[in-house]
Amino acid sequence: MTYTIDRRLAGLSLDEADARTRKVLADHGFGVLTEIDVRATLKNKLDVDMPGYRILGACSPKMAHRAIGLEPRVGAMLPCNVILREVAGGVEVSAIDPVVSMQAIDNAGLKDVLAEVRGMLDKAVSAL
Amino acid sequence: MTYTIDRRLAGLSLDEADARTRKVLADHGFGVLTEIDVRATLKNKLDVDMPGYRILGACSPKMAHRAIGLEPRVGAMLPCNVILREVAGGVEVSAIDPVVSMQAIDNAGLKDVLAEVRGMLDKAVSAL
Repeated sequence: MTYTIDRRLAGLSLDEADARTRKVLADHGFGVLTEIDVRATLKNKLDVDMPGYRILGACSPKMAHRAIGLEPRVGAMLPCNVILREVAGGVEVSAIDPVVSMQAIDNAGLKDVLAEVRGMLDKAVSAL
Repeated sequence: MTYTIDRRLAGLSLDEADARTRKVLADHGFGVLTEIDVRATLKNKLDVDMPGYRILGACSPKMAHRAIGLEPRVGAMLPCNVILREVAGGVEVSAIDPVVSMQAIDNAGLKDVLAEVRGMLDKAVSAL
């Protein structure tokens, strides 16, 4: 099952793709609350080399507030991650599909919120 | 379906539970790479009040490296979150169950890694 919404940005560096992604996320109501430089972390901890890889934790405060009100432990699956990976010729951006990633949560009200968030992420990725 | 591994810490403040959780996670091979103070974020962005709520992003570098090698986009579901919520009489700690949260990823090798990580998180939560 596809669990991410993907877009390949040809000819962009990781930093350029990062800046573009943050702008587009902001335009669509998402703040970036966390950031992990996976390449740097694994180099530092394990001394392994890999292509550039970042995880941005994107959050719409309004939607997060609604989701937590409906499902108190949902924070265990928040924020919605958007990953940036260096690939041949550019950068691939993949946003989590929250409807898929949270399918194990049996909560009808939450599913409505997640569908709305998926729509927002979908529009953001399309605007990249 | 249960998607978290839970433990209630009676009589502890959020800061005490946070310190204990970080120590136990470190003892079991997890670093905390991200932290979101959900209460402060929602107060700041939406001016709403709620009980204390934090999201810690826990990561075992070794397991993350194996997982990404098997499934390049898995970072969209990393790190493994551990949430701390103020509840009546104490704090509830809930670690994500990665086997459940990543069930949509059709990758047999990854499932073995996730089962191992679940075991590590299970031991950590039991040690709280």
